[in-house]
Amino acid sequence: MPSNAPLPQFDDVLDAAARIAPHVCVTPLLRADALDAAAGARLVFKPEGLQHAGAFKFRGACNAVAGLPGADAARGVVTHSSGNHGAALALAARLRGIPCHVVVPEGANRAKLDLIVAQGAIVHRCAPTLAAREARCAQVQADTGATLVHPYADPRVIAGQGTATLELLAAAPGLDVVVVPVGGGGLAAGAALALAGRSPGTALVLAEPAGAADALHALRSGRREPVPAPGTICDGLRATLGEPNFRILHASGAQVLAVEDADAIAAMRLLLERLRLLVEPSSAVALAAVLAHRERFAGRRVGIVLTGGNVDPDALPWGPR
Amino acid sequence: MPSNAPLPQFDDVLDAAARIAPHVCVTPLLRADALDAAAGARLVFKPEGLQHAGAFKFRGACNAVAGLPGADAARGVVTHSSGNHGAALALAARLRGIPCHVVVPEGANRAKLDLIVAQGAIVHRCAPTLAAREARCAQVQADTGATLVHPYADPRVIAGQGTATLELLAAAPGLDVVVVPVGGGGLAAGAALALAGRSPGTALVLAEPAGAADALHALRSGRREPVPAPGTICDGLRATLGEPNFRILHASGAQVLAVEDADAIAAMRLLLERLRLLVEPSSAVALAAVLAHRERFAGRRVGIVLTGGNVDPDALPWGPR
Repeated sequence: MPSNAPLPQFDDVLDAAARIAPHVCVTPLLRADALDAAAGARLVFKPEGLQHAGAFKFRGACNAVAGLPGADAARGVVTHSSGNHGAALALAARLRGIPCHVVVPEGANRAKLDLIVAQGAIVHRCAPTLAAREARCAQVQADTGATLVHPYADPRVIAGQGTATLELLAAAPGLDVVVVPVGGGGLAAGAALALAGRSPGTALVLAEPAGAADALHALRSGRREPVPAPGTICDGLRATLGEPNFRILHASGAQVLAVEDADAIAAMRLLLERLRLLVEPSSAVALAAVLAHRERFAGRRVGIVLTGGNVDPDALPWGPR
Repeated sequence: MPSNAPLPQFDDVLDAAARIAPHVCVTPLLRADALDAAAGARLVFKPEGLQHAGAFKFRGACNAVAGLPGADAARGVVTHSSGNHGAALALAARLRGIPCHVVVPEGANRAKLDLIVAQGAIVHRCAPTLAAREARCAQVQADTGATLVHPYADPRVIAGQGTATLELLAAAPGLDVVVVPVGGGGLAAGAALALAGRSPGTALVLAEPAGAADALHALRSGRREPVPAPGTICDGLRATLGEPNFRILHASGAQVLAVEDADAIAAMRLLLERLRLLVEPSSAVALAAVLAHRERFAGRRVGIVLTGGNVDPDALPWGPR
């Protein structure tokens, strides 16, 4: 998306909500006394791991695919994704009966790759660099005429992801803070739009792995800059903030909290125990941020989006006690 | 409950639904292509592990507590439970602001005992026999005037548990079969009432651990008889079918399928992977029964109640691959 392109607005989130309503799962709100006690705050969770294809990503992918004109749709869609967006786009394409190509870097999370394949995508492997992903993607576009649906730097995707926060605000009015993980910034920018339009008094806090903290630096310095070699177990959050995502978030005044991997893993375990939900480390960072900054959230009503749950149950990142 | 006492009816389930509506979580329906493919059938799951206190048990407990006259309520409630019913009753009592006594046998599941304590119950330990549980319970009743809320052989509890199936039928009309686990038979008898009143063409199948298969024998022979020493990992399903539960289920024509523990564990792992839900082995038996009897469910629309998710995440019953 060119840097002078118009940014998506709150109305686009409302349009997305209407467009994806026939397909999306309205995820419930969950809470637990034990988690409130641990945080010293009143927490409600929006478990998007229960969404189709196991992550909020289906919202944005579905919005993009459902909005395609018929002739474009017939040529299919393409994306590069190491995980949840690929599976989500494949599912959205399958529901519309069109082809979906997913460029997957070597070394991608096995549970996520399995899901992409299971959704019927045509998988193209490439080297694990952004340049290789983009080049392979451009090649598929040239070969097939498929429409690129970028995992996060796409106004249709941002608007679609905003529907998660829209639902959260509808089910839990009057939140003081909404906390979401940030990687490329699709969910985060969508949340900023939803909050601005629906609940401008609610603060937005972004949780980011300390080993891939480009959003923290970008929103402080006002300049996007990739982290050269992101190091974190949170495979869904290694991407650099997208350009439109950055512009939306910078204007929103959102704040970023960095989270250590060990804290993300502890939060993941706590959510499995207390909400009976398997979430990926990339999701658990949001609760981890709240627990690591208790003073900041004390006594407040906090909404947390648990972004996804595509984890290999045989490789949970903690051992038996 | 004496054997000539009137049995709860469908109207009692409707009354329960209205009574508990302000307190209960309307759990969502979940499904996954991978699970449909594994079963060769169309499966929808009602994840009651997302219910307050982590199991459907809150429905029956809440119905019993909310329906108590004020003077009785003030003296509190008492039950004997090794697990989910104890936590559920404690929560229901706490919401009404009355005391709750729970008689817990030695050797109870740690995750469940922790939950009972966390909900603020007064815990009384006893030897792990039915006689010891009942004697201790009677003593607490005599000492405090608390009302006994039996875990399953109680019409208020049966009616309350029936609301889980009522919600399932409302959200997924036209099911061919509903499958629920059976232990003492609260959920199962409630399901029979809900089906009879709302969807009499839907068959009821009960899943029971092979190591505690008293319901299988009782519904075949027409006579209740406890299994002398139940041996199964499904700690929530070791109880003998209650008397009113038996009468309702016998009249309903429900069928029982026995499930091996290894199959329950495999189904538990599959649900964690495909629905991102942690369920206890006692819940997973329902899916295990469907997978072990594919021919019986082939092509049919099957509703499955996943009863609870109170499991210690450090002691999942499978090792790393």
